[in-house]
Amino acid sequence: MMLVVPEIIRKKRDGEKLSVDEIGGLIRSYIAGDIPDYQISALLMAIYFRGLDAEETGELTRAMMCSGELLTFDYLPESKVDKHSTGGVGDKTSLVIAPAVAACGLKVPMISGRGLGFTGGTLDKLEAIPGFQVRLDTHSIRQLIEKHGLALVGQTDNLVPADKRLYALRDVTATVESIPLIVASIMSKKLAEGIDALVLDVKTGHGAFMKTFDRARALAEALVDTGRQMGKRMAALITNMDQPLGNKVGNALEVEEVLAILRGEGPADLIELCRLLSAYMLWLGRAVPTIEEGKDRYDRVIASGQALRKFRDLVSAQGGDPRVVDQPELLPRAGQSVYILSPAAGYVASIPAGVIGWAAVLLGAGRMTVQSAIDPAAGIIFFKKVGDSIEKGERLCELRFNSGISIEDVENSIRQAIQISPHPPLKGALVLDTIE
Amino acid sequence: MMLVVPEIIRKKRDGEKLSVDEIGGLIRSYIAGDIPDYQISALLMAIYFRGLDAEETGELTRAMMCSGELLTFDYLPESKVDKHSTGGVGDKTSLVIAPAVAACGLKVPMISGRGLGFTGGTLDKLEAIPGFQVRLDTHSIRQLIEKHGLALVGQTDNLVPADKRLYALRDVTATVESIPLIVASIMSKKLAEGIDALVLDVKTGHGAFMKTFDRARALAEALVDTGRQMGKRMAALITNMDQPLGNKVGNALEVEEVLAILRGEGPADLIELCRLLSAYMLWLGRAVPTIEEGKDRYDRVIASGQALRKFRDLVSAQGGDPRVVDQPELLPRAGQSVYILSPAAGYVASIPAGVIGWAAVLLGAGRMTVQSAIDPAAGIIFFKKVGDSIEKGERLCELRFNSGISIEDVENSIRQAIQISPHPPLKGALVLDTIE
Repeated sequence: MMLVVPEIIRKKRDGEKLSVDEIGGLIRSYIAGDIPDYQISALLMAIYFRGLDAEETGELTRAMMCSGELLTFDYLPESKVDKHSTGGVGDKTSLVIAPAVAACGLKVPMISGRGLGFTGGTLDKLEAIPGFQVRLDTHSIRQLIEKHGLALVGQTDNLVPADKRLYALRDVTATVESIPLIVASIMSKKLAEGIDALVLDVKTGHGAFMKTFDRARALAEALVDTGRQMGKRMAALITNMDQPLGNKVGNALEVEEVLAILRGEGPADLIELCRLLSAYMLWLGRAVPTIEEGKDRYDRVIASGQALRKFRDLVSAQGGDPRVVDQPELLPRAGQSVYILSPAAGYVASIPAGVIGWAAVLLGAGRMTVQSAIDPAAGIIFFKKVGDSIEKGERLCELRFNSGISIEDVENSIRQAIQISPHPPLKGALVLDTIE
Repeated sequence: MMLVVPEIIRKKRDGEKLSVDEIGGLIRSYIAGDIPDYQISALLMAIYFRGLDAEETGELTRAMMCSGELLTFDYLPESKVDKHSTGGVGDKTSLVIAPAVAACGLKVPMISGRGLGFTGGTLDKLEAIPGFQVRLDTHSIRQLIEKHGLALVGQTDNLVPADKRLYALRDVTATVESIPLIVASIMSKKLAEGIDALVLDVKTGHGAFMKTFDRARALAEALVDTGRQMGKRMAALITNMDQPLGNKVGNALEVEEVLAILRGEGPADLIELCRLLSAYMLWLGRAVPTIEEGKDRYDRVIASGQALRKFRDLVSAQGGDPRVVDQPELLPRAGQSVYILSPAAGYVASIPAGVIGWAAVLLGAGRMTVQSAIDPAAGIIFFKKVGDSIEKGERLCELRFNSGISIEDVENSIRQAIQISPHPPLKGALVLDTIE
């Protein structure tokens, strides 16, 4: 098929539907170097304005997915399931869920990314464990799945090259915030993992990419629809990201909190979400007939220590120091610490997750740009969450950091952002909606 | 000023207004090679959807205009005036108007373009005159204006380089059809000529870029507004381009028709438009107090032979063979000829200009792509125009061409396009509206 690229751009510009051949041909030719960036960026902007319908989004996803290597574990009888979060602050659920679900007998080929801006990344958290390797080749990933039932790794170089190219272009042409383009980016990578089922955790609120519930719901529906078009079992939770998830933000600190959760301890919001997401994965993976029984299975592998053992085995198998699991004090620890105290008695009314995420970046826990180095030890520990009562002068949170940080700026930004109210705030639900 | 290009693209994408510094900085940085094509093409698509207001359009025009050399004839006391047409089929008015207005004592520094697709170009018509040179440097253009009062030339390499870059990018990214971008492209080039006043001939209809009157009127208003922002005297005519202008289409054939008009002969529609455009130029150039007196001045320089003499002098000054002016048979003449006869008696109801323009391209008179060579002798002569009565078997038109043309295809496309009706058609006006 001969592609006339300006005519394809014009069609989308004028709100017409692109054909399967046009979308597939565009992606193949772009990756082959036969279409220049400037035509693709114009098309991306036309898509920003005109959108893609469900069929076009599915075809874009398929074409991107097929631009590189595809993993498959079809030769294993167990269901292959995964979870994807659209990104938040303090969201360390992947590190709990993957071993818990694998401990229940399913296969979890979880390919994750790094943090950028105010959102953290699973790979950065894992690398806080001394020795842990996230860059594995396909053969090693396959061995981990076969032997341990899970892998917590980064994208291989051959996986979905079209997304790497397109994302870099979107980032510099103001075309990131387009639901069909977000869907194709997420789903092309997840579907290339060779999974049967996927649970989505679509975050909404101050510390999320989707600031409003309506946008989050629209994204969740499009993600679920695209996965189902390809025969995958799909579900989505829309969850609140107005305040950070759990009590700890920062890579080593979050691993500490993961270990607490795997021992059956830890903060209530994080327990609730890990339990629910695991239950959905078990249900979609047909390990249990109902969500409720999924929660029970999760509780049992936590109580029995099987989930913790699975995590220890994985750390060891991916080159990390397994002693960390029982001695979290072996994790990197920051040299300096500052407490932020409450300026008044009352109730914590707001801990804006976006501000906290950026404060963590300033402490060294995150990245301004993809090139930035991060400090695994840096981060923030919260002693109070929204709705908790607090005395004047009581500890709100602790900042952990190493030298070279202008700590007053970070302190000021957090002090200005956290609100203390004389009255208890209306506390919203953590899970706002579900798509099953 | 530090430009954050993705943020500027986002602003325009979200319908916000760009500042003078942002627009100026973008164009300067783009031409300097500091902004890649893929960011500019995304911005152009955002402009396609969101538009530019009058101030932004003016600033884009100014920034593009200032990207290269600016001509000026400020040291000459006479008004410097020009005419620009948005392009049509059989529109050879420039070759009549420029010498007529120069014969009235004004200066006409007319920089024109080549034909592309179904529209013809002034430079191609001029090059049908043996020896005629259109590629002149600034010094030579200056000498022509000083000595003869007119120049009929192509763009110099240094004139408005930003438009060359932007137009090439728009052409391959489906961002040509945006009124503010069309305005900036036209006006940056015209204003770089050093003119005081400009008459616009905005074509609408089947053989025009603007297919509807409303779009043509919107373009005309934006062009006039942008010129006035820069202190220029401006007027626009909106003229019908449903059928070709005059009786001849094709480069040497159109020069023949120009010579007829300059001798006071030729078809009525072409006389009407040349007379009116000249009158507007004379009026804007303050050579006459009213349009009506402008028409009289035009009539006098035609009747006296001064306009023809001015054209002969110009041909000679630009290297062409001046004998052509009195012996049109010295123009290139095609070796083959086919007549198309009327299939019925009645009235000519329609000669769709777009089809005729493409038929002329197929005969060799125009270009499919900017690289194509053209045959100056090829073209079409009409013996009847819309509204004329015709007998069955009477000649409708003649096709002139050289060997290597699949003439049956051209004949068929014209036969199918021209409509003969038993009743006289309602004849529309040539000039549909004016902006003064």
